[in-house]
Amino acid sequence: MTDWTSHTARARNWFETLRDNICAEFEAIEAEAGSNARFDYIEWDRDTDDASDGGGGVRGAMKGKVFEKVGVNVSTVSGAFSPEFAKTIHGADEDPTFTATGISLVAHMANPHVPAVHMNTRFLTTGKAWFGGGADLNPPLPYEEDTQAFHAAFRATCSKHNPTYYDRFSKWADEYFFIPHRNVARGVGGIFYDHLECDDEDAWDRNFAFTQDVGSTFLDIFPKLVRKRMHMPFSEAEKTQQREWRGRYVEFNLVYDRGTLFGLKTGGNIDAILMSLPPDVTWS
Amino acid sequence: MTDWTSHTARARNWFETLRDNICAEFEAIEAEAGSNARFDYIEWDRDTDDASDGGGGVRGAMKGKVFEKVGVNVSTVSGAFSPEFAKTIHGADEDPTFTATGISLVAHMANPHVPAVHMNTRFLTTGKAWFGGGADLNPPLPYEEDTQAFHAAFRATCSKHNPTYYDRFSKWADEYFFIPHRNVARGVGGIFYDHLECDDEDAWDRNFAFTQDVGSTFLDIFPKLVRKRMHMPFSEAEKTQQREWRGRYVEFNLVYDRGTLFGLKTGGNIDAILMSLPPDVTWS
Repeated sequence: MTDWTSHTARARNWFETLRDNICAEFEAIEAEAGSNARFDYIEWDRDTDDASDGGGGVRGAMKGKVFEKVGVNVSTVSGAFSPEFAKTIHGADEDPTFTATGISLVAHMANPHVPAVHMNTRFLTTGKAWFGGGADLNPPLPYEEDTQAFHAAFRATCSKHNPTYYDRFSKWADEYFFIPHRNVARGVGGIFYDHLECDDEDAWDRNFAFTQDVGSTFLDIFPKLVRKRMHMPFSEAEKTQQREWRGRYVEFNLVYDRGTLFGLKTGGNIDAILMSLPPDVTWS
Repeated sequence: MTDWTSHTARARNWFETLRDNICAEFEAIEAEAGSNARFDYIEWDRDTDDASDGGGGVRGAMKGKVFEKVGVNVSTVSGAFSPEFAKTIHGADEDPTFTATGISLVAHMANPHVPAVHMNTRFLTTGKAWFGGGADLNPPLPYEEDTQAFHAAFRATCSKHNPTYYDRFSKWADEYFFIPHRNVARGVGGIFYDHLECDDEDAWDRNFAFTQDVGSTFLDIFPKLVRKRMHMPFSEAEKTQQREWRGRYVEFNLVYDRGTLFGLKTGGNIDAILMSLPPDVTWS
């Protein structure tokens, strides 16, 4: 079996660099809105009974004038899955030990005209090694042109790497970010990908390059959408609509989201796992 | 196999009578607070592809001055479980057809000094027939004397029926209303019971009488606690504490609650299933 230690370290370094760049950009947006909000960073260790398990992460969180609540978590964990959970994880039937490094970001915005957003990319190793990730836009009050711009950015990035990626990964996002019990989409989609297998060094290089580009594309397109909408006036009725819309977001994350489940089952940090949950939600 | 049709009808009549009495009492409390809030009732039919499946219910909801949001649902449904889901349901491996009738109530209160509450009792038939139910108190700002009074009321009721009930059922509530990922209890407990088997007519009579007393006990004790606390002044900080506490309640209901899962898996009415979710929630 390949030793993925140095690859995991390289992926982790990238996720941390991406985090730093995103946080700097989000803080710049706050400054433009006349706020001096800054990210707070909290380190956490993985809570585990087994000394051979380990790792942890850093959770960045900011509450600002534009970003009502944004969390960015970079975590790098390792250990062994329980036999029962291993059955549900790609490649873990061959080897229940795992490493996982990734960045996860969720932003809930003060202005209901500004879309909420989620972005996550990750590198996992079990008996197999693969990248996964994605980004999806979650506007309480959708604008078709924002949806188009978000998709166009990821379409361009996907096309640079593989002609089939955008079609496959945007369809995957539509299927994944869906709330069956309400029969509605969580948002307006984006891309979702998983199991980009790293069978050899070349495959790793390709998949890592793609994953880096997904992060960079997010960093390019999302701030544009924020700056376009952040000064729009909004009514109390629109804010209420946002609060109710956020309820659907909570339902998806707590009932269906695999990342949330993964975190809860592997002794992740609760505050980091549930940082995705919005402030100020209403179920009418 | 016993034909449980008439028993189901008797149980349903009781649940509807209990609902009427509870709603009248809650409206009386609103009137005492100078509000003319009343319950709205919405009928719903079970959404199903299979014509042999059926049933539905009536969802009562009120938003008042004392009751920020209260829902009372009486539903009576029947059909056949999917083979996969049948494995998880008591007695459904013998016979996947089922009937279920029950009352479910959740009250989220405007004043954070007033406890939120949940009460549910039900009669189910599969290859077996049984009663289940319970009630638990969920104070954002707990008062030991309220907790004691709530437990004392159910202890007395349990003792009238079976000397082992209170110990078993209050322990069961502690185990059931627990949030593993936070390692905290959802509230301050109460009672929870399930699979009170009806092997013969006598057992049915006994279990029905107990279930009726559980409902009546709720109707007696909860309004007392409400009237005791509803006029207490509270601060914005206490209201914020309540909103954050409600987040834990949402986490429990969406991640762990069997009733929610049962509803989502059996084509229940989404608004009725999720009426338990609080208004105005915060994840900080």
